[in-house]
Amino acid sequence: MSLKRILITNDDGFDAPGIFHLRKALEGFFEVWMVAPKNEQSAKGLSLTIDSPLKVKKLSLEKTFVVNGTPADCVKLGLSRLMDSPPDLIVSGINCGSNAGRNVLYSGTVGGVIEGVFRGIPGIAFSCSDHNEPAFEKAEPFILPIVNFVLDHCLPRGTLLNVNFPSPRVGIKGIRMARQGRGYAIEDPDLRQHPSGADYYWLGFKILDFEEHPESDVAILQEGYVSVAPVHIDELTDEAYLKKTKETFDRLF
Amino acid sequence: MSLKRILITNDDGFDAPGIFHLRKALEGFFEVWMVAPKNEQSAKGLSLTIDSPLKVKKLSLEKTFVVNGTPADCVKLGLSRLMDSPPDLIVSGINCGSNAGRNVLYSGTVGGVIEGVFRGIPGIAFSCSDHNEPAFEKAEPFILPIVNFVLDHCLPRGTLLNVNFPSPRVGIKGIRMARQGRGYAIEDPDLRQHPSGADYYWLGFKILDFEEHPESDVAILQEGYVSVAPVHIDELTDEAYLKKTKETFDRLF
Repeated sequence: MSLKRILITNDDGFDAPGIFHLRKALEGFFEVWMVAPKNEQSAKGLSLTIDSPLKVKKLSLEKTFVVNGTPADCVKLGLSRLMDSPPDLIVSGINCGSNAGRNVLYSGTVGGVIEGVFRGIPGIAFSCSDHNEPAFEKAEPFILPIVNFVLDHCLPRGTLLNVNFPSPRVGIKGIRMARQGRGYAIEDPDLRQHPSGADYYWLGFKILDFEEHPESDVAILQEGYVSVAPVHIDELTDEAYLKKTKETFDRLF
Repeated sequence: MSLKRILITNDDGFDAPGIFHLRKALEGFFEVWMVAPKNEQSAKGLSLTIDSPLKVKKLSLEKTFVVNGTPADCVKLGLSRLMDSPPDLIVSGINCGSNAGRNVLYSGTVGGVIEGVFRGIPGIAFSCSDHNEPAFEKAEPFILPIVNFVLDHCLPRGTLLNVNFPSPRVGIKGIRMARQGRGYAIEDPDLRQHPSGADYYWLGFKILDFEEHPESDVAILQEGYVSVAPVHIDELTDEAYLKKTKETFDRLF
């Protein structure tokens, strides 16, 4: 029986330690293809590169490519030009820093997965909390069983899994399926002066705390559980508002 | 009575014709602030600039700023540094090109609105179909009544309005509240050779047709209606999958 095919990508760049551990966890069990960004693409979300040329470099490692673009660019070129047939799954990460809560839509790691989900290819994003001390080694043994779970229990169309590992300062007590939380990294602009005298900002960030559902990814990460949140990012109509307001609205015009 | 405050932004850049028409439609009725990107930011989604400095330029027009970043960067700096108190509404556009269907998550125009929605500030994204011949003049008279509707009929937390105008080749028959459709711009990579001989791609795009709900934005735009889709982009947990799978999943580990 031929192996299932997995496309891996990330947003920290092709030579980041996180994608090395991701690949190590999957190699041998799957036919692994890798199309990853040349440079760091953190906070690039589902962003695409339409105004500058994309260059693809094939590395000496088999089925491995580097693109000077975003994770979504990588997945697009992988699916439409670099792979000879579509993968069974797209896996992105392991990101350096949490993508729990509302960070889902800012995250380049998740962006690469969304690109596949829109085309009917299921996907999983993996991220380690604690930007300064991500515990990739401790995360690695969870990758294969989670991937196998997704291959065995089809994700609904339009849904991805957003997996986050707790900070090594907390340790790993276990793993739980979770809700998407509300916390996210808000800006913390730092005004500085260029040597020439001109002002500029570093956008910066700080973590905002919200009242969280006890089963949210943000909450269970703090307790030391790996969080696995099914997130639906397609057909996002607000049905209740549409139902309540459509008649009044349509009559106004 | 003091005027309500509106922050406007876009993704085509501060001097694009679309934002000129947007401002024209609102000026005099509201206290209008503008924080817009220096350069075009199409397809940048909710992307942030965290790895390079952001410069803010105050234009001679009152309450008007230009930032060398993305629409979400503009909104972040507007809310945290440039405005003296938060706006009642964020309005983005008018974009050159449709953002109907799944383009919502790729669109920089919508990205600027999402940034506000996460912070409890309601928002509307306006876009004109037909990249080559956007009918900004015909769109302009619809802006004020739609903005007033939103101010009168509170959007639920986490929901934005995604408004698209039909192509001038179709004309405007009316306006309807709509569902988010499924169509979107997929890549259409164009392989070329640099004068040096190296290969590169333009990512490109082509519109993918899907079977659309008759009340979807994509479908009614084709019939000549302005589409107004309430899109919920917060707390995106796939409740059904969570409920169905959580017990099995949590027991596995």
